[in-house]
Amino acid sequence: MTIKDIAKNCSVSVSTVSRVLNHHPDVSEEVRQRVLDEVERCAYIPNNSARDLVKTRSDAIGVIVRGNGNLFFSSVLKTVSDEIERCGYTMVLHYIGSDADEVKAGAILEREKKLQGLLFLGGRFDYTPAELSVIGIPFVCCSYTNYFGSLDEKDYSSVSIDDYATAWRAMEELIRRGHRRIAAVIPSRNDRSISELRYRGFEDAMRANGIEPDETLIEETGGCFEMPEAYEGTKRLLKRTEDFTALLMLSDTTAMAAMKALEDHGKRIPQDVSVIAIDGLNVSEYAIPTLTTMIQPAEEMGSESVRILMNMLKDPGYTRHKLLNAPLREGASVRSI
Amino acid sequence: MTIKDIAKNCSVSVSTVSRVLNHHPDVSEEVRQRVLDEVERCAYIPNNSARDLVKTRSDAIGVIVRGNGNLFFSSVLKTVSDEIERCGYTMVLHYIGSDADEVKAGAILEREKKLQGLLFLGGRFDYTPAELSVIGIPFVCCSYTNYFGSLDEKDYSSVSIDDYATAWRAMEELIRRGHRRIAAVIPSRNDRSISELRYRGFEDAMRANGIEPDETLIEETGGCFEMPEAYEGTKRLLKRTEDFTALLMLSDTTAMAAMKALEDHGKRIPQDVSVIAIDGLNVSEYAIPTLTTMIQPAEEMGSESVRILMNMLKDPGYTRHKLLNAPLREGASVRSI
Repeated sequence: MTIKDIAKNCSVSVSTVSRVLNHHPDVSEEVRQRVLDEVERCAYIPNNSARDLVKTRSDAIGVIVRGNGNLFFSSVLKTVSDEIERCGYTMVLHYIGSDADEVKAGAILEREKKLQGLLFLGGRFDYTPAELSVIGIPFVCCSYTNYFGSLDEKDYSSVSIDDYATAWRAMEELIRRGHRRIAAVIPSRNDRSISELRYRGFEDAMRANGIEPDETLIEETGGCFEMPEAYEGTKRLLKRTEDFTALLMLSDTTAMAAMKALEDHGKRIPQDVSVIAIDGLNVSEYAIPTLTTMIQPAEEMGSESVRILMNMLKDPGYTRHKLLNAPLREGASVRSI
Repeated sequence: MTIKDIAKNCSVSVSTVSRVLNHHPDVSEEVRQRVLDEVERCAYIPNNSARDLVKTRSDAIGVIVRGNGNLFFSSVLKTVSDEIERCGYTMVLHYIGSDADEVKAGAILEREKKLQGLLFLGGRFDYTPAELSVIGIPFVCCSYTNYFGSLDEKDYSSVSIDDYATAWRAMEELIRRGHRRIAAVIPSRNDRSISELRYRGFEDAMRANGIEPDETLIEETGGCFEMPEAYEGTKRLLKRTEDFTALLMLSDTTAMAAMKALEDHGKRIPQDVSVIAIDGLNVSEYAIPTLTTMIQPAEEMGSESVRILMNMLKDPGYTRHKLLNAPLREGASVRSI
């Protein structure tokens, strides 16, 4: 049974049947009813054979965004959306909280929306194969890898910067400018996630330069990248000690919150304290002073993630782990001492 | 033909057929093939009758986001996404450029994704019924109304703040604090959009307080709310005149860009120039100094928009125009003179 048969049986043109099936308004109610009745009588299925309908899962790609108000992810999302659409798929967007389980959310979304593939914008770095077994479709970790986990590299894909090396290079910039008393306000030192990995870069860069990390210069904010927590963390650090000349922050927005806390505490940036971060958001170019930061290439990250996911859909054996460069964006928040 | 018939014809259990149709792995290849062949032979369609398949348009709600990197829309989007999902629908997200035509984008998306409803995050204020006739499904204008257009109020819904009155109240705050030489750096004075409406509030509030608006204190940036344009516009204003004590900006991010331009020009905020804006973003709380701004309630705007759209889907005659309050958030960027 084809659209031509429907048209013939109803004594209307093929294009009229098409208009009815596509809900166009320019068809009389009488003709519409006649076509719909015939469609029902013949159990005609537009476009797909019954077999296709069972085989295909829909054209949906799930995108799980972790954390509320993460401005970096907002900037990745536009590219991801554009690229998914350009490839002929439909993006199904789902936000989860900073501490929510993206794997569980992905597994539920996979079933509910009959997804073809998944893209995680942010997530844990320590997946096990058992945990990931609930996901039955190809997925790409966007902005992170499975550094602390036990997944086989061939079982997933990722697009990220080298978080460890990027934190290291931010530190080298501070050390090159003469800083040795360097503080850090970070979500956590040992959450087996992006924060721990960047913290390791912080610590190892110091040691490699002959500086013993000072316990009193590290302040943990409890696992999230939110601005209020970063502000309060910086305040706590300043209460404990003012004996530092530079501060590493792990994102641009938390760095802006830290600059605010420093300012409120009477510290001038960069005269009293230099601040460096990792992200490269547009908004931090307009911070006062302009934030010095390592640029995570948001657009490239988004487009590479979708490109890799498309290859995974075409070729079940395909996976890829892409590391992107994170160049320094020189602002005015770091000075030489 | 039901799933029971398929199971009977294949001599397998109903749950086995279900597993095959839902792509579960735990079915032998032989049984899978047998079930699929029978499904094809019977033209069996899972869950829906052929008639339903033609009648229903999918469970998709389109969300068209206007403007790149609009942080206010980013904060609305999370609530919109959560609410659409909570109501059992799937959100189809589509970004368009600042100057793109959201109606055309909506009409294309409606057809491609077989949408049930549309939500516009940002758009023009001057639709005509003819222009909107390409949209055949209920839609809600989120963050704007059709103030300058000729749509019948009953033909669409909107959720917004009162842009004219909110700009007026921002001006009253400046005037109450003693300012009379008040500048504005705005996208446009006459683009028949949110910028023109807020500009009218600016002008009328001045006149109502016996201040004649001064042409030289108005700088137009060319129709968009991007930070680089706002920065350059403020620079142009400062080059032309420094004879003002306060500045109205139409969004928080453009206000942050303007503060940066003032700072780069050697002006202190608020000692030399007070700055007030409209938006109430979290990030501008951490601007130095904290931005004084009128809060657009992002979450309420998102949830109200979805709620109204759901009512429109249930009841074809339902429309609603909801104006939300935009209270003042006092920061440190405005001082009394």
